[in-house]
Amino acid sequence: MTRVFNFSPGPCTLPTSVVNELGAELPDFNDAGMSLVEMSHRSPEYSEVHDDTVNRLKELYEMPDDVSVLLLQGGASLQYAMAPLNALAPGKRAAYINSGAWAKKAIADAKVIGDAYVAWSGEDVNFTRMPSPDEVAVEDNTSYVHLVSNETIGGIRMAEFADYGVPTVADMSSELLSRPIPWDRFDIVYGGAQKNAGPAGVTVVMVRQSVIDSAPTEMPNYLKYATHAKANSLSNTPPVFSIWAMNKMLRWIDDAGGLTAMEERAAQRSGKLYAAIDDSDGFYINPNDVADRSHTNIVFTMASPELEAAFLAESANHNMANLKGHRSVGGIRASIYNGLPDEAVDTLVDFMASFQKANS
Amino acid sequence: MTRVFNFSPGPCTLPTSVVNELGAELPDFNDAGMSLVEMSHRSPEYSEVHDDTVNRLKELYEMPDDVSVLLLQGGASLQYAMAPLNALAPGKRAAYINSGAWAKKAIADAKVIGDAYVAWSGEDVNFTRMPSPDEVAVEDNTSYVHLVSNETIGGIRMAEFADYGVPTVADMSSELLSRPIPWDRFDIVYGGAQKNAGPAGVTVVMVRQSVIDSAPTEMPNYLKYATHAKANSLSNTPPVFSIWAMNKMLRWIDDAGGLTAMEERAAQRSGKLYAAIDDSDGFYINPNDVADRSHTNIVFTMASPELEAAFLAESANHNMANLKGHRSVGGIRASIYNGLPDEAVDTLVDFMASFQKANS
Repeated sequence: MTRVFNFSPGPCTLPTSVVNELGAELPDFNDAGMSLVEMSHRSPEYSEVHDDTVNRLKELYEMPDDVSVLLLQGGASLQYAMAPLNALAPGKRAAYINSGAWAKKAIADAKVIGDAYVAWSGEDVNFTRMPSPDEVAVEDNTSYVHLVSNETIGGIRMAEFADYGVPTVADMSSELLSRPIPWDRFDIVYGGAQKNAGPAGVTVVMVRQSVIDSAPTEMPNYLKYATHAKANSLSNTPPVFSIWAMNKMLRWIDDAGGLTAMEERAAQRSGKLYAAIDDSDGFYINPNDVADRSHTNIVFTMASPELEAAFLAESANHNMANLKGHRSVGGIRASIYNGLPDEAVDTLVDFMASFQKANS
Repeated sequence: MTRVFNFSPGPCTLPTSVVNELGAELPDFNDAGMSLVEMSHRSPEYSEVHDDTVNRLKELYEMPDDVSVLLLQGGASLQYAMAPLNALAPGKRAAYINSGAWAKKAIADAKVIGDAYVAWSGEDVNFTRMPSPDEVAVEDNTSYVHLVSNETIGGIRMAEFADYGVPTVADMSSELLSRPIPWDRFDIVYGGAQKNAGPAGVTVVMVRQSVIDSAPTEMPNYLKYATHAKANSLSNTPPVFSIWAMNKMLRWIDDAGGLTAMEERAAQRSGKLYAAIDDSDGFYINPNDVADRSHTNIVFTMASPELEAAFLAESANHNMANLKGHRSVGGIRASIYNGLPDEAVDTLVDFMASFQKANS
């Protein structure tokens, strides 16, 4: 079989070794006479995978002792509710940075749950940049500042995490396991696995004990971080396959040098694509502030929708798939998550040059 | 490889053809050059699997037009919150039948969310039976009666669904796709897939349009049934693998004769095990009312914990796994969901006879 270079924004490409291992091991796990997905989540076999996944996340992220790893379901979408439900104390406020499509969803949920306000909005610059620290207006009585570290649709990221004087809560779905976390300022970090960390179906939530301890107790059981922290994420049946696949991805990341290596690789590979854009004399256009350009979702437009359609059609003929921009913004988007091989980026850079030559 | 007869209460055994197909197809889906779990949830390939899964559920359940199928995450545990959040109108009450461990969890969440009361409790009979219809005390101003159709730990089920004069909301996790639903009295039916319907990671919610339309609008987005109904369960990234695996399970059930066949098979196979218990002259003991015995979770005890331990050890030597009762009640539990082959039940029945002979 020929593996296609898959630039999907998520779910997305995994290392070839990971999908091949999953296929080979799926029908019979370690000669147990059954698949891992057929085993009780309290079986010794699954427990080992589960605990190893939690431990690898702790080690890769160099997590402080007072941060718990929860393996949940519902995606970042459910965390848009759970984070304020657990962390926004009655009588306190929450500051939200509106950096684009995902931040807006987080803000909408927070406003339903408590007293949330927008401390900075990129709406009037069409979400082409992130705020500088002093632009974020944190008001008195604020519990936390919520940010989306990388907007997959707009293609911008926060290059640095500022200290806003209150704890930070972050949706890092599209940068999960592709950059280290400076723990001193974070209370909650969450993200769906289906970009850098494995297939869809599991959500990683990293949460500080102080949040767990001070959350309201009168809440539905699943929505409480305490429920899952106390039960090592086994209060109810976990998404076994997705956690098993993430475990394989964590091993792959470890072998490839860990999070610092992932961060450097993302910078280097996105750098090649931005160089191709910037050196194209305006044939390819990225609208975003250079300092805030995403390292995982590289967006660009061309002179006309027809040219973009031709780019997509021809790239597909060169073994590249899923380069279409999000339906809300159009253009081209190359998502280059951990699982994407380096050759895919090099192939795209070469193709961009030849396509430009043929169409200038 | 030898397939073990796996009586796990969930996650649990799947048909051999299903796990083999998943393994074979996992690395490359229909020669696409990538796995289905690496594809966007908006790709044509995944869309076809997704829509086919929804349609098969509608057809197998002979669902009325005003019932929507939602493919969610978080298990029945999250539905213990979502059902009352959406269906328990302010100023109204909800009646809950306390039939055991799972019902208690549903009740605890409902009481946090609104005005919920216990309309019948099996607590004083140690959850050995279900209520007769006239024992369920539905009070004025009640929105719905909530029931758990089968308690996996206690091993009891509702043989018939009564008409309580108000709509019924049901957790059918352990009977999902193993009995038809008499739609005239149900407003919401939900269940985790990881017993009769596939591996863990997806929750099937079937909900009537009137519930969706009358639910409060001021709720976090993920927790609203309307969010998922409007978006065909693609408001956020769905658990792709689990839905794909459930699709294979739905095809298998269809080939095996549909829900009526599954219901008859469950009655017949559980009947064999109950006959083995009842004909054992008290060597094996099932504590439950005969009319309310579960068709999917057959529980029994023996004269001593030592005898039960010997039973578990020897059954493992005869290719049978996971017969241990739930840690909260002990004893033996044979969970015989859709995916378990008939030979497994016959093997267990034979083993029960020979074990009794050797230990009497």
